[in-house]
Amino acid sequence: MSFSIILPDGSKRAFEQTVTISELAHSISTSLGKAALAGRVNGQLHPVEYELSQDAEVAIITDRDEEGLNILRASAAFVFEVAAKKAYPELRLGEHGTETDGFFVDTDKENQIKISELPELEKAVKHLIKAGEKIEAVTMSRAELQEIFRDNAFKLDLLQAEASDEITAYKLGDFIDFGFDILVSNTGKIKQFKLLSVAGAYWQGQSSNPMLQRISGTAFFKKADLEADLKRREEIRERDHRTIGRDLDLFFVDPKVGAGLPYWMPKGATIRRVVERYIIDREVADGYQHVYTPVLLNVDAYKTSGHWAHYRDDMFPPMDMGDGEMLEIRPMNCPSHIQIYKHHIRSYRELPIRIAELGMMHRYEKSGALSGLQRVREMTLNDGHTFVTLDQVQAEFSKILKLIMDVYKDFDITDYYFRLSYRDPKNTEKYFANDEMWERSQSMLKKAMDDMGLDYVEAEGEAAFYGPKLDIQTKTALGADETMSTIQLDFMLPERFNLTYIGQDGEEHRPVMMHRGIVGTMERFIAYLIEIYKGAFPTWLAPVQVEVIPVNLDAHSDYAKKVRDELNKRGFRVEADLRNEKLGYKIRESQTQKVPYTLVLGDNEMKANGVNVRRYGTEEEVAKSLDQFIQEIDQDVKSYSRKK
Amino acid sequence: MSFSIILPDGSKRAFEQTVTISELAHSISTSLGKAALAGRVNGQLHPVEYELSQDAEVAIITDRDEEGLNILRASAAFVFEVAAKKAYPELRLGEHGTETDGFFVDTDKENQIKISELPELEKAVKHLIKAGEKIEAVTMSRAELQEIFRDNAFKLDLLQAEASDEITAYKLGDFIDFGFDILVSNTGKIKQFKLLSVAGAYWQGQSSNPMLQRISGTAFFKKADLEADLKRREEIRERDHRTIGRDLDLFFVDPKVGAGLPYWMPKGATIRRVVERYIIDREVADGYQHVYTPVLLNVDAYKTSGHWAHYRDDMFPPMDMGDGEMLEIRPMNCPSHIQIYKHHIRSYRELPIRIAELGMMHRYEKSGALSGLQRVREMTLNDGHTFVTLDQVQAEFSKILKLIMDVYKDFDITDYYFRLSYRDPKNTEKYFANDEMWERSQSMLKKAMDDMGLDYVEAEGEAAFYGPKLDIQTKTALGADETMSTIQLDFMLPERFNLTYIGQDGEEHRPVMMHRGIVGTMERFIAYLIEIYKGAFPTWLAPVQVEVIPVNLDAHSDYAKKVRDELNKRGFRVEADLRNEKLGYKIRESQTQKVPYTLVLGDNEMKANGVNVRRYGTEEEVAKSLDQFIQEIDQDVKSYSRKK
Repeated sequence: MSFSIILPDGSKRAFEQTVTISELAHSISTSLGKAALAGRVNGQLHPVEYELSQDAEVAIITDRDEEGLNILRASAAFVFEVAAKKAYPELRLGEHGTETDGFFVDTDKENQIKISELPELEKAVKHLIKAGEKIEAVTMSRAELQEIFRDNAFKLDLLQAEASDEITAYKLGDFIDFGFDILVSNTGKIKQFKLLSVAGAYWQGQSSNPMLQRISGTAFFKKADLEADLKRREEIRERDHRTIGRDLDLFFVDPKVGAGLPYWMPKGATIRRVVERYIIDREVADGYQHVYTPVLLNVDAYKTSGHWAHYRDDMFPPMDMGDGEMLEIRPMNCPSHIQIYKHHIRSYRELPIRIAELGMMHRYEKSGALSGLQRVREMTLNDGHTFVTLDQVQAEFSKILKLIMDVYKDFDITDYYFRLSYRDPKNTEKYFANDEMWERSQSMLKKAMDDMGLDYVEAEGEAAFYGPKLDIQTKTALGADETMSTIQLDFMLPERFNLTYIGQDGEEHRPVMMHRGIVGTMERFIAYLIEIYKGAFPTWLAPVQVEVIPVNLDAHSDYAKKVRDELNKRGFRVEADLRNEKLGYKIRESQTQKVPYTLVLGDNEMKANGVNVRRYGTEEEVAKSLDQFIQEIDQDVKSYSRKK
Repeated sequence: MSFSIILPDGSKRAFEQTVTISELAHSISTSLGKAALAGRVNGQLHPVEYELSQDAEVAIITDRDEEGLNILRASAAFVFEVAAKKAYPELRLGEHGTETDGFFVDTDKENQIKISELPELEKAVKHLIKAGEKIEAVTMSRAELQEIFRDNAFKLDLLQAEASDEITAYKLGDFIDFGFDILVSNTGKIKQFKLLSVAGAYWQGQSSNPMLQRISGTAFFKKADLEADLKRREEIRERDHRTIGRDLDLFFVDPKVGAGLPYWMPKGATIRRVVERYIIDREVADGYQHVYTPVLLNVDAYKTSGHWAHYRDDMFPPMDMGDGEMLEIRPMNCPSHIQIYKHHIRSYRELPIRIAELGMMHRYEKSGALSGLQRVREMTLNDGHTFVTLDQVQAEFSKILKLIMDVYKDFDITDYYFRLSYRDPKNTEKYFANDEMWERSQSMLKKAMDDMGLDYVEAEGEAAFYGPKLDIQTKTALGADETMSTIQLDFMLPERFNLTYIGQDGEEHRPVMMHRGIVGTMERFIAYLIEIYKGAFPTWLAPVQVEVIPVNLDAHSDYAKKVRDELNKRGFRVEADLRNEKLGYKIRESQTQKVPYTLVLGDNEMKANGVNVRRYGTEEEVAKSLDQFIQEIDQDVKSYSRKK
């Protein structure tokens, strides 16, 4: 036997007998031997025990390689399983896996694992890490594993799904599990380990299946990395609209009464109402005609639009009303606005016709995908449809885009970029066939962007099949890309619904339809606002704008009420805290509730007809006359969220 | 043979042989003989040919009797049938009948009767009336009539439903029909006759059945009565919210896309938006917490509430979401607001808790009952639920009632009365069993009304089974009584949903729930407003408040735009009519559209920075400075609809 191994730097090493990856690493240097987590042999990953016996290109994977972290976390999941099974011998394990920032293990027992049990389990894992136990890869038959897991229906399901009868399993002492790609050879390599959370997870993501407990954790090579990650998680948690929504009592979702159907509590509803009035007034000032259209529509309209054929999985089941009428709870508002357009004969003189609505819609999302206000089944879209001639596309597009950017300024939304999507001219199957329409409209969109001096990403082949579009992308607190606003041209629906206008020539012509959303759905937009403001809403949006607190209930309550009523009368949202609690407690609570202005009123204020103002987020207290304060808050409300 | 007839005045007449009612009348006086329409024999009505042969109490029915008008109109329907069948031998007749103000006949033929054909038919009827044709009552067997109507499936259906095999039919020449109670003996008695309208009517009111044409008409004894009635109808038509809604382009309903599902056109939507903002702001100022709750709810909630068992026929079919979830599109908002209440543990310190919402609901109404915005299947209710201790009922009731009356003042609603509904204490089966609750709460409601010095109707046994209530009744344009506002106590839902609050004693207590509606549904309320204002909305509600018209397009358009923009900036709803049309035409159209202020702008106005104002409904034109006009309209908007 004689073969040679080529290393990534191009150097060759010759061997006369089989050598494991670990031995190869050690042969290069002691430190590399210690650091070796796995090897890439001719492009494929293998554990360090893997034996080399012929010519190959081999790279040693260490903590410096991208794959290293993933191997570490898979190993951490495995070691957690060992510790958990030791602590609860009756525990049944389900799926496990790694994610971009950690790992998870699904568990099931009669008394499910609680968050309070995690520290003890973490200690047990750390004990195993310290002990430096050996983790061994073993090849087993499906039958052998079925025997081992005979009492665990989850694992039997997973075994059934394995492609081959020969299965790689890993072993630590008596414990065996499978479904891992590559693990480290010794628990000692895991270094930094942390258990993070417990959450319910349906078996295979199906809500008709039993719910298991998903234990999530993470692992790192270096302490500093773990600490940075925990800090990042804390920041995300602080911004998470679900956490803030609960803490500030803004909304809740209760799957028992309806999965993905949010209830807006009074404070959340106040924010939503302010946003709704703001956006309607903005749009009306910009020439939109706001309407109300029914949430139910005859299913035939969705057959005409093509949604019934292509979008049905995302729609709710239709309702049979008897008399042959089938009603669908609408998944979008376009067919409804088309009814408004078609209700009159339209003339070129009227175009552009801009129809807008806060339109309630329902879309069927899988229960596993639902999340707070961000992913819901009932939503109200800041929707609008503009009907134009092809000549008017560019001007109307610019007008809409200007509106979007003005609105962003008012909400202080600054972190976004533009994505312009074209058809792929070669993909004639996907795209609506009308070269002139596509070419002219795409160049109009591009020209509009250029004329406005805006940067944008161009994406050929990412347009919808019915026309080109502009998406405006923002980021959620979790860093995910999200489409906030969109302007989409549509050549297809006007055809399908036979929309026309009478041109200057007295003949019927086909308008172009533009779908546009400024702030998207109320649900997702307010989830986003909660995250960008961390719940500290600017004054114009804050559910309670001013908290009035008397220093002494007996002495200053009347003055507190007077100040409250004075401000209420002027349209500000004010509460007076007249509970029998300590002053410090009330001030702290006003801060916790992130109320923009806290007014503390004692003898001095009463004498001077003044207020003592503490702005949210500052420690400073400033004495002012009530009139001065009214001017200040009035200015504050009028400036929206804009940075001053 | 010898018998005697006792007349209504007690006098007796003896006869030796059979005598018809007609002969009896003639025997009393010639004029009575001529006026006789029918007779009441021992309490039962009979035609004038009816033969008397034994002792009886008999009254002669003439045009002075209440029954007279009904007999006249049934006869008019019959004579119309004769004329219609003569004009269209292929015509199939369906049902016929009388109503409080006229009669109808359902007809069917290949080319249905059109409104334009009514004058010709009316002429034919009048011809028959003039000719004084004999109408004869004949008794026929079911089989004979089945033979006559063998080609008319409608009549065969009706014959099937007749109770007896011996059927009274009426005959004029060759023409025979049945299903009439009493008819006059001669067409000459019909006098004043008028055909009014044609409308589609499903056979037996079922929309799965064929649609027939319903011809409606009326008849009177005196010309003056007919003329007064036609005038009344014209007035109703002028107020009819469906007619005005079409003329002013406020809304439409299209059964092809959804029966009973209104589309609010931009102008109607503007009115609705102003009303919605007004009522929300009013309620928030009055201590209500406005929320948004989903329109879908797990059907279990309606099983708990009892609606599933008792109200299911009025509900839409539930949607099976898979995973065992059955969702119902809500028929009311109470269970949703109960979710809001239950979301926190509540303390006596928080009560009363006032939850309000513009809550969209769906109720299944038969298609025949649907009408414009007044009877719909999708509606948005100005809903609210107050949770109180039993002690707080009276104060809260008074507070709600005061809010209602204040709101009425703002809309200038003056024609209403109060109806207070109690339980029937003897009906223990219907009413929730808790004597103390009923007695205390009923007396609190009564006391509140008395303390406020209000008149009211008391209705024992008309309370809902769950508690006493106050209804506030208004009248529609058609004169029908309608419940505009309601305050209902509910002892039952707090039990069923196990609602509690922690009392001062630290124990759990059961709150009382109060359902209340201030202006009812947006749909019905705005239908009502259209009718009371006859479409001439007061300035604060008008979709377009000011129409600006330049005298000369070239010379004054810029000034017109300046005035429009100036007013728009201040939040008024203004349009400038810059079309290439004549001045007079534009002014007339502004009047037809019932715009509160029309401003005509020419040289004089431009020079003086002024406006020439024409207030809707006046002929007067008043020159003002623009500033004066702004002050005037601002005051007008702020005074709502209140009479000045």
